[in-house]
Amino acid sequence: MMEIKQYMQTVGRQARAASRRLAMASTAEKNAALLAIAAAIRRDSAALVAANGEDLAAARAAGLEPALLDRLTLSAKGVEAMAEGVEQVAKLPDPIGEMTDIKYRPSGIQVGKMRVPLGVVGIIYEARPNVTADAAALCLKSGNAAILRGGSEAIRCNQAIAALVQEGLTAAGLPPECVQVVATTDRAAVGELITLREFVDVIVPRGGKGLIARLLAECRVPMIQHLDGNCHVYIDDGADPAKALKIVENAKTQRYGTCNTAESLLIARAEAATQLPAIAALLTGKGVEIRGCPETRDLVEAAKAATEDDYATEYLAPIISVKVVAGLDEAIDHINRYSSHHTEAIVTESHPRAMRFLREVDSSSVMVNASTRFADGFEYGLGAEIGISTDKIHARGPVGLEGLTSQKWVVLGDGHVRG
Amino acid sequence: MMEIKQYMQTVGRQARAASRRLAMASTAEKNAALLAIAAAIRRDSAALVAANGEDLAAARAAGLEPALLDRLTLSAKGVEAMAEGVEQVAKLPDPIGEMTDIKYRPSGIQVGKMRVPLGVVGIIYEARPNVTADAAALCLKSGNAAILRGGSEAIRCNQAIAALVQEGLTAAGLPPECVQVVATTDRAAVGELITLREFVDVIVPRGGKGLIARLLAECRVPMIQHLDGNCHVYIDDGADPAKALKIVENAKTQRYGTCNTAESLLIARAEAATQLPAIAALLTGKGVEIRGCPETRDLVEAAKAATEDDYATEYLAPIISVKVVAGLDEAIDHINRYSSHHTEAIVTESHPRAMRFLREVDSSSVMVNASTRFADGFEYGLGAEIGISTDKIHARGPVGLEGLTSQKWVVLGDGHVRG
Repeated sequence: MMEIKQYMQTVGRQARAASRRLAMASTAEKNAALLAIAAAIRRDSAALVAANGEDLAAARAAGLEPALLDRLTLSAKGVEAMAEGVEQVAKLPDPIGEMTDIKYRPSGIQVGKMRVPLGVVGIIYEARPNVTADAAALCLKSGNAAILRGGSEAIRCNQAIAALVQEGLTAAGLPPECVQVVATTDRAAVGELITLREFVDVIVPRGGKGLIARLLAECRVPMIQHLDGNCHVYIDDGADPAKALKIVENAKTQRYGTCNTAESLLIARAEAATQLPAIAALLTGKGVEIRGCPETRDLVEAAKAATEDDYATEYLAPIISVKVVAGLDEAIDHINRYSSHHTEAIVTESHPRAMRFLREVDSSSVMVNASTRFADGFEYGLGAEIGISTDKIHARGPVGLEGLTSQKWVVLGDGHVRG
Repeated sequence: MMEIKQYMQTVGRQARAASRRLAMASTAEKNAALLAIAAAIRRDSAALVAANGEDLAAARAAGLEPALLDRLTLSAKGVEAMAEGVEQVAKLPDPIGEMTDIKYRPSGIQVGKMRVPLGVVGIIYEARPNVTADAAALCLKSGNAAILRGGSEAIRCNQAIAALVQEGLTAAGLPPECVQVVATTDRAAVGELITLREFVDVIVPRGGKGLIARLLAECRVPMIQHLDGNCHVYIDDGADPAKALKIVENAKTQRYGTCNTAESLLIARAEAATQLPAIAALLTGKGVEIRGCPETRDLVEAAKAATEDDYATEYLAPIISVKVVAGLDEAIDHINRYSSHHTEAIVTESHPRAMRFLREVDSSSVMVNASTRFADGFEYGLGAEIGISTDKIHARGPVGLEGLTSQKWVVLGDGHVRG
């Protein structure tokens, strides 16, 4: 334990030192590092796939579940996508140093803001090797040193990627400690990382509920957390049936395992009899299990009974809970009660009700006549995302480069003093 | 202890419920409440002064220090200033509901942001009755329910103010629980408040280092913290002596007890011999004690020796540490090492060095040719401030209404689905 503590202290101290240099790096230096990293990844594709093969063999021997083995797998195609992802980050505009809103004040000074890095970002994630390159690239471009702690099953491949990232940094004249991948699989390292207030400015967890629960209890560093996505679609009184059908289909069935997938459908009583049977037929036809309220079950023969728990559940599976509600008020109340505050959509033709839904639903993304599946950094134009925050502090919803920055105040005078 | 826990749970639950209503309140409702509060405060001025008199008598009997008694005192003039402060907040623009940056994306959806309240704000402050009205007004205008915990010495006056705030809320048709002042002086209440994750979205501490140290160890809710202000003025090579003298005088001597007062002066070696004697004479003439490096002491006879500790100290008193540095690089290194990251100023005629100072000094306010005393919500045009954050997460520097808000994403479509 003492060794882990010392090791993480060293990692933290190195990250802090590197972050000071990186905060001053020019856009050209950061882009040169990113392109060198992408080139190194492409060059060593075979070695990365081989390292991943060792990880997979060990994970199979340890009896890892097939779904997790799938996430852990890195193919040559995956390596190429990783390199392309890093190149895409190089193309994004550099957020750092941007000065905005510089205005004269009555005292004669000019006051505005300058965008700056947060400093050191700690990222804790599952055994998905692509996240290592991804997260490294986003932190680097936003001027933040990164401490990456990936799932232990991916340790060999992550270390191989880390070496290439550090090679790229060095080639561009930046300290290799700008990106450090924790070299131990000991879980105590996470405990150290999340209490290193002196050296770590923010923790970004990308993992399941167990990880988040642990962090909520133990984390002593500010966190950009990503909880589950229990997303809703509400079909309003007078909603267009064609739009409703299309949006529910896309929100629920395009992908079952993503956090922006709809897990619950609410429908206004006035529309239930006319719209619900067709929607249910489409979902059932695609193999989606329906768990409904009593009114839903009267209209949809195949529906099972929904429990209180169902309304609060992120299934990540071909299952959907369905509830008939009186109208907008009940829909908003239900969503604010059961939702995880990730993403919710209304299907409506009514402007005032659309506006009320946008204002009154307390979630990180609120949508009118659009699929919840759009809640995504690329779809929103962020270029890439480090995660989706369901917090309200600092960053909410998809977090891109800007979410990894802060703004300091800039004051320009010419000998001005306060009166 | 169990009673305090239950009491704070009730306060938290009520705050959460009230916050949902307040988040939906119109600007007119919020302003009506603010004006009713101001009127009630003005009407009951004599009663407030009397309640404060009881607080003062008890504090005197308990042997409270004169400086703290001074802060605790509320005069009729102070009550009027309090009412005017609340009226000023009513005049500020309402930040809530503002939609910005709504842009079309290639998919055809429009994506932008809407400004929303944080929810429930917990504010912990010293025995200064005016903060109660101030903080209540800022939270109310920004659509946040507030839980206020003032210093126990001010309990009678704070409760009297709380009753008037709740009267104003009720008059405007808003739940009185939008603003709750903790009714117990038991310190355990603070311990409960800072761990009420379910009901409290952010804690804003306005207090001394002891409070912040306790919160850093125990707080389980995100915090907008305000640490000390060890602010620097750096006089650069070639700085204009008249501007330098004026800025140092204002930054150090306008007020000694404020967090934006300069505590340390750095001067480039090339300017020390010509500029330091006059600056030292002015400061010494005003009764400021100088603690200097050896070079400073060679130039300024009256200077005492500065220790390592001096460079890290926020004196809040007529004392200043002075160090001669080689130039900009050493100044930036010194500041980033010893500063509390609050506010730093450079006096310079060089554009490139001014730009380097702005970019490379890691503090919440960085200034060129202006007094550190300008670091203030009113001076920056925020209208009012709830505190000055030395954190980087969420809010940095003076925090006004906007710092008490978050932004959610808004997506507008017309039946759009993800491809």
